[in-house]
Amino acid sequence: MLTNRQNIRIEWGDCDPEGIVYFPRYFEFFDACTRALFERAGLFKRDMLKTYDIAGIPVVDMRASFMIPSRFGDDVVVESSIAKWGTSSFVVRHRLMRGDAIAIECSETRVWTARMDEDRDKLEGRTIPDAIKAKFAAVDDNNEEELTG
Amino acid sequence: MLTNRQNIRIEWGDCDPEGIVYFPRYFEFFDACTRALFERAGLFKRDMLKTYDIAGIPVVDMRASFMIPSRFGDDVVVESSIAKWGTSSFVVRHRLMRGDAIAIECSETRVWTARMDEDRDKLEGRTIPDAIKAKFAAVDDNNEEELTG
Amino acid sequence: MLTNRQNIRIEWGDCDPEGIVYFPRYFEFFDACTRALFERAGLFKRDMLKTYDIAGIPVVDMRASFMIPSRFGDDVVVESSIAKWGTSSFVVRHRLMRGDAIAIECSETRVWTARMDEDRDKLEGRTIPDAIKAKFAAVDDNNEEELTG
Amino acid sequence: MLTNRQNIRIEWGDCDPEGIVYFPRYFEFFDACTRALFERAGLFKRDMLKTYDIAGIPVVDMRASFMIPSRFGDDVVVESSIAKWGTSSFVVRHRLMRGDAIAIECSETRVWTARMDEDRDKLEGRTIPDAIKAKFAAVDDNNEEELTG
Repeated sequence: MLTNRQNIRIEWGDCDPEGIVYFPRYFEFFDACTRALFERAGLFKRDMLKTYDIAGIPVVDMRASFMIPSRFGDDVVVESSIAKWGTSSFVVRHRLMRGDAIAIECSETRVWTARMDEDRDKLEGRTIPDAIKAKFAAVDDNNEEELTG
Repeated sequence: MLTNRQNIRIEWGDCDPEGIVYFPRYFEFFDACTRALFERAGLFKRDMLKTYDIAGIPVVDMRASFMIPSRFGDDVVVESSIAKWGTSSFVVRHRLMRGDAIAIECSETRVWTARMDEDRDKLEGRTIPDAIKAKFAAVDDNNEEELTG
Repeated sequence: MLTNRQNIRIEWGDCDPEGIVYFPRYFEFFDACTRALFERAGLFKRDMLKTYDIAGIPVVDMRASFMIPSRFGDDVVVESSIAKWGTSSFVVRHRLMRGDAIAIECSETRVWTARMDEDRDKLEGRTIPDAIKAKFAAVDDNNEEELTG
Repeated sequence: MLTNRQNIRIEWGDCDPEGIVYFPRYFEFFDACTRALFERAGLFKRDMLKTYDIAGIPVVDMRASFMIPSRFGDDVVVESSIAKWGTSSFVVRHRLMRGDAIAIECSETRVWTARMDEDRDKLEGRTIPDAIKAKFAAVDDNNEEELTG
């Protein structure tokens, strides 16, 4: 399974008066990690939007469990992978690690979304192209040991 | 059930290149709505932290379903209420409404959290005082019609 | 001079580990206050972008002096007005008030910006329509006492 | 002059409906770049706060000129250095580069700030220790070519 590992330094502005990360910031981290995961599969989001004429891959469902807080100056790692491919949606799983401990588990469902032909201001889900799914499988095959070892 | 209704104008800076709200912003909205819900029960968070010597009420679990996107300039309403009281945790339910339509449903579990006596840098859950729960019940009884009508 | 007064409650997520507002948040406030100032002049930004076929009114210069910090739970007021109209640019002045004290003074220069006809991905300044400037003058005349009193 | 160069990828959530970076995000970048500059001088902010018993180094004055917008997916570099040391304040200069072009110039004045002994809820400026200034000079001497070349 193709997994991206992203190093994140917790910044002053990420933290609240209690000194721990203000939780909405984690979702910004995870969104950037999904972007990075796609990039690791060779898919640059900016190019992908143009090539496939989609408006984006918005989140439609989000579940997160926060087990250990993080603080200003901490270095954490987010491991991200595709947990499931559907027809027009897919699930990305993120684990925020503090050393060997899982601090946060998050599961986000996203939809392959385009503007409607008949009304460009409206959005609709579309079938995820096989070429996209293949990109993740291809990287997986070639780098399995390095990536999951 | 005590329910707070918060009017929110979607700002330019809340929206992403697709023109819809960048989803982590919703969690900032909901956090402010939980603050407002407590205030409606007569509990100002800043005072509450001092009075009860707690560090905060951090989120430990978050679930959200995003059904309808919102855009720059939209006016939305967030309805918030306590869905469940536990011993040291409680569940806040938020519904973001666009007119009569539910655009987002969100359920956040928070813990009544204090600094540990033996190590002030560490956090631990504590029993939620009955006085806190009573505040929500009291308002509920007095204003039920107005609030839920 | 048309002045908009915006009440702002400082939220938990606006504050840093020191318990004071993380300064980039102020610029989010001011951006929303510029939007609100235009609205007070009868110009809804969303509609204005369409009507005048502009891409936005981005900030090109920003100066701010932070004199008094604000904290979680504080209620502050931002007074905003147009300090100067140029040909394609204008200056918005914001003062964040804590009671009678000026906590922050900010001056932002913005440009009336459209997409270039020959390359829609590029932006260029345009002459601000007289109709826009007139809107501010009109409101000014009608409500001077109320607004500046 | 000790200069830190920070690579920044513009994320989806940094950008507004026009597709360019929402300007308050730049100030979050610059704040993190000041943190990184100090780290390059061997001063980890978290430790520095404890060692010198200060509350932080809040910004009291900010000036920025935005010359070229950046977009989702862009890679930019922020060059940061101390432009001037005062008694209790100092000026950090940031230049956000897009290749060889300066996209943004920013000058932020910060104050070495402690909690007052007689009222721990109040903040006051303090004399910047010589040891702090020396850290920047020391690194400068040792790595001048590499850092400024």
